[in-house]
Amino acid sequence: MVKAKPIALQSVKLQDRIWKNRFELVRDEVIPYQWDALNDRIPDVPPSHAIENFRIAAGESEGEFVGMVFQDSDVAKWLEAVAYVLAVEPNPELEKTADEVIDLIARAQQPDGYLNTYFTVAEPDKRWTNLRDWHELYCAGHMMEAAVAYYEATGKRKLLDVMCRFADYIDQVFGTEPDKLQGYPGHPEIELALVRLYNATGEEKYLKLSKYFIEQRGQQPHWYDIEAERRGNVPKYYFSDIGYNYSQAHLPIRQQETAEGHSVRALYLFSGAADVAAETGDRELMEVCKKLWDNITQRRMYITGGVGSDAYGERFTLDYDLPNDRAYTETCAAIALVFFAHRMLQADVDAKYANVMERALFNGVLSGISLDGKSFFYVNPLEVWPDACRVRRDLRHVKTVRQGWFTCACCPPNAARLLASIGQYMYSASEDTAYVHLYAASEADFTLPGSKVKLIQETEYPWQEKVIIKIEPEEATEFAVAVRLPDWCEMPSLAVNGDEVDLAPVTRKGYAYIRRLWQPGDRIELTLPMPVQRVRANPLVRANAGRVALQRGPIVYCLEEADNGPNLSAVVLPPDAELTAKWNPDLLGGVVTIHGKALRVDESQWDGKLYMASSTQPAAKEIEITAVPYSTWCNRQPGEMLVWIREA
Amino acid sequence: MVKAKPIALQSVKLQDRIWKNRFELVRDEVIPYQWDALNDRIPDVPPSHAIENFRIAAGESEGEFVGMVFQDSDVAKWLEAVAYVLAVEPNPELEKTADEVIDLIARAQQPDGYLNTYFTVAEPDKRWTNLRDWHELYCAGHMMEAAVAYYEATGKRKLLDVMCRFADYIDQVFGTEPDKLQGYPGHPEIELALVRLYNATGEEKYLKLSKYFIEQRGQQPHWYDIEAERRGNVPKYYFSDIGYNYSQAHLPIRQQETAEGHSVRALYLFSGAADVAAETGDRELMEVCKKLWDNITQRRMYITGGVGSDAYGERFTLDYDLPNDRAYTETCAAIALVFFAHRMLQADVDAKYANVMERALFNGVLSGISLDGKSFFYVNPLEVWPDACRVRRDLRHVKTVRQGWFTCACCPPNAARLLASIGQYMYSASEDTAYVHLYAASEADFTLPGSKVKLIQETEYPWQEKVIIKIEPEEATEFAVAVRLPDWCEMPSLAVNGDEVDLAPVTRKGYAYIRRLWQPGDRIELTLPMPVQRVRANPLVRANAGRVALQRGPIVYCLEEADNGPNLSAVVLPPDAELTAKWNPDLLGGVVTIHGKALRVDESQWDGKLYMASSTQPAAKEIEITAVPYSTWCNRQPGEMLVWIREA
Repeated sequence: MVKAKPIALQSVKLQDRIWKNRFELVRDEVIPYQWDALNDRIPDVPPSHAIENFRIAAGESEGEFVGMVFQDSDVAKWLEAVAYVLAVEPNPELEKTADEVIDLIARAQQPDGYLNTYFTVAEPDKRWTNLRDWHELYCAGHMMEAAVAYYEATGKRKLLDVMCRFADYIDQVFGTEPDKLQGYPGHPEIELALVRLYNATGEEKYLKLSKYFIEQRGQQPHWYDIEAERRGNVPKYYFSDIGYNYSQAHLPIRQQETAEGHSVRALYLFSGAADVAAETGDRELMEVCKKLWDNITQRRMYITGGVGSDAYGERFTLDYDLPNDRAYTETCAAIALVFFAHRMLQADVDAKYANVMERALFNGVLSGISLDGKSFFYVNPLEVWPDACRVRRDLRHVKTVRQGWFTCACCPPNAARLLASIGQYMYSASEDTAYVHLYAASEADFTLPGSKVKLIQETEYPWQEKVIIKIEPEEATEFAVAVRLPDWCEMPSLAVNGDEVDLAPVTRKGYAYIRRLWQPGDRIELTLPMPVQRVRANPLVRANAGRVALQRGPIVYCLEEADNGPNLSAVVLPPDAELTAKWNPDLLGGVVTIHGKALRVDESQWDGKLYMASSTQPAAKEIEITAVPYSTWCNRQPGEMLVWIREA
Repeated sequence: MVKAKPIALQSVKLQDRIWKNRFELVRDEVIPYQWDALNDRIPDVPPSHAIENFRIAAGESEGEFVGMVFQDSDVAKWLEAVAYVLAVEPNPELEKTADEVIDLIARAQQPDGYLNTYFTVAEPDKRWTNLRDWHELYCAGHMMEAAVAYYEATGKRKLLDVMCRFADYIDQVFGTEPDKLQGYPGHPEIELALVRLYNATGEEKYLKLSKYFIEQRGQQPHWYDIEAERRGNVPKYYFSDIGYNYSQAHLPIRQQETAEGHSVRALYLFSGAADVAAETGDRELMEVCKKLWDNITQRRMYITGGVGSDAYGERFTLDYDLPNDRAYTETCAAIALVFFAHRMLQADVDAKYANVMERALFNGVLSGISLDGKSFFYVNPLEVWPDACRVRRDLRHVKTVRQGWFTCACCPPNAARLLASIGQYMYSASEDTAYVHLYAASEADFTLPGSKVKLIQETEYPWQEKVIIKIEPEEATEFAVAVRLPDWCEMPSLAVNGDEVDLAPVTRKGYAYIRRLWQPGDRIELTLPMPVQRVRANPLVRANAGRVALQRGPIVYCLEEADNGPNLSAVVLPPDAELTAKWNPDLLGGVVTIHGKALRVDESQWDGKLYMASSTQPAAKEIEITAVPYSTWCNRQPGEMLVWIREA
């Protein structure tokens, strides 16, 4: 297994149309909006109270705690996103605000290191009594991530020190020793956060604590039974009918073979497990992660990179159960899949991880946020009939337009922190190899053993097939540049300084390794032909039988009512219909659309009736269809949307 | 509009394979089983306590009320089914048991006429305080139906008198007068029952009371608001999120244009409204019934005659929303559609009513009961993937095998009373016309103005196309025999005594009227060619796009895993595939199966992956398929089932 480390965010400069735009939206729209939300300055939405909760916990304000038990994590995710913005470019005003928030957080920390405004303000005697449902360790994890990100962005240690003190305290409370609590969080997050804290500080006990939380989970006697008995079983477990898999506590991780339960919880846990396995060289644990990865990506993932197909419990269900209209596919779950993919990719540079990471980023993640950065989807179905969503109970979780904010506002700040830090997902380095995982106009500074090297990507990817990578070492140096050959691309080609390279001999696990004495001015020209593709789902995916999804490059397309009229199920794509791509600079922020001739069955033949017997297929008229990138749907007038189109 | 009256149950003798068998199952299996259930003698199911509740209410036993608030109605439905059995054939032992139950019911009646064991035993001070949720008037209605049926079957008036006393009391309690309660039941049923009581007794006030309940419903100020306020809004309305349409109280009936809310409640109400409209000659109300009929049957009905597509609220949703796997399609709703159809048919003899009645009977009703009469479906979906039903929350209402009994055991006794009385749905008479609505080997005695006439049907319908109807008047008489030309039949033909009749000139509203001087020994030979049909749903039914259902005669077919292996969505029926019918005397009680060549997409091409891009359609191998009647599914080993098959 080839291991690599991501290039730090500071070392990547984005020029790319999509990602730079999303970064700017996070900086200019999302972060200011969230700051107003955290401070209860948004009219007509329930107050967040999150900053006020910290003031009350710090003894600087009067009042009661308001919000979800995990309200603190909204502040943490906001801070983390701010940290990434500051890592990319200076922003003194934003940094000043963040510093003030950090000072407030420090003042809210308790003398023993404990930090959680809900339990400090509302139920101080109930600390650690319900790890199953109450998110103390989850909030701790998010604040640790924020602390590490802020430290790495600014060099300022204050929040890092606060969170080390909290981590030290948690380490005293939890463990297998008889005088400690043998518990673990119902919502994983602290596991991966502790590894980040370990990497930032070098403090081994944080790694060990993470390993403890991962290994202890699901062991017998079951902690959630023990703590429930101590509480007199109050509150009851809302998800007892689907078992402890909702809390990722159904089995010890080493016994898990399929991804079960709440999809975000599962993927945060698997991300933490991958971190621990990589840091400790635990091959068995890494094999568990690979098995779970394969189960998700080969049996339980939508074409958009969305996961979690049942709204009840926001969870994984069973292999091949991927209904389109009822999909839950929470934005946070696609984000969590990116986290897991990114970790697996560093542990074993295999394009299968980066391919899924790219699929999720361009489709299931970007769909969660509007093109103006002001509204969000929590749920991302692949087929929407708005009238039915308004009436049917089993579609109630499907919002037919993006929402301004949510009571459980996990997705918008999660998207913000990912999109603000997107630069660090693009490149990584191993001993003597510079990896290019994602294609986007950008520059990255690598430090390889012999030399510092700048890589400059010039491309209009994902809309155009050419990617130029300029290699600029400080001086001529031998090393490898490894570029991903995307799984969607059937005929990639590559030239170095104009000379075609035979890819087969140099390709390993989906990456072409170009090793040579690189000179300043050398260039790789990668060509990734992007015909419009018809993607067909495995026939075991019952929901997609007889249907195709249109894809071009990594972009999954959909039909919208705005372009194609209502009742998209009546549209049939003939097998031989030619499909063409067209660049539209002024549409939806600049997108390639797909066009072709299709058929539309005309309901007038039914004469107002529901059913008609006929031995021949009903007449259909030829129509022009327009498909737009799935992630951009519902940025014009609301209406129906369909990814999987009938083919016949 | 041609009006008719059904031939009394006593005057119809069944020889038909399907209906006689179901009658015998009701007599030999269902009624004895239900009697044991009502008396708490079935092991391993929750006790019904229904008979014991009456004993306690009569002061003859100690203890508390147990069961649903509408537990009494189980006894009523049982008695009604018993009455129909006694109408068809003597059964002294069963009659003795029924008489004893009736005596017990009479003893449980309160001095003022009130009769309901829940309120008598458990909450005597809460009579009539929550008409919205508590089923007092519903139970009264069912007992009225039982009383009329028992009186008509046996001539015994005891239960009829009990229920007249109760009706008289109800009439004193409810009405528009200021000193009465301006309420109406949350679950309609008493409306149609009161019309039956009126017809049995000639007592006009019962008809007026029915009309009151129908007209008052949904008027402002809203009774359910008034009574809720009086109760302090306790209990809260569980279905407040979908509004009063759950209780058919969203609008006065004359303002309704679409079928909304709980499907059984809606159809019981519409049945009562049709009765009142017919009895009072209220053309406007009849037009409302017709509009609602059209909405249901042209927009909101499954091909099986099932209605109510959302489990939440067991309700109608919106036009063309007919998902197959999540269908609720309660057996009781298909039964209620038969009730509504039967009433509309008598008010205006139009085959559109009888066609739907036949569709529901042969498909969505019969599917509810196993071939051995011992187990029942409450929910009747048109596509079942058992593994998903075990895991997915939004499929939890779908049982993948028929159940022995239900906590809310409305469907089995409802099916029993319908199947025991099926004879009265087959024929009716107007002034000088004998109508044949349903085809089944049977005899019926008509009393027409000039003569008594026996009609003898000889047929193997629905499996064979020939129907012989022998006309046996006591003496030569002129009258019309009107036979239905089913909507599924494209080329019916008819001969009288061997002479072909030109149907077009004598056909009105789907019935061929054969008027002549009928002589003893005359015979009609009706030929209803039954090719296997491919039925296509209106393209607005998104769930069925690109699919066909197989139908032969009135029988809707399905694929079962037992015959065709798992993953039925991978089966594709080529447009030109020949489909043949085969009689199987020993299969599923004797059925015609459908056979043909189809294709099955082979998932091995995906090499374990979820998605594959390819410009050509995936290879498929030729297979033989076998389709069985939908109503008989899951009478062999459990497994997948599919009605709407992909066609390409």
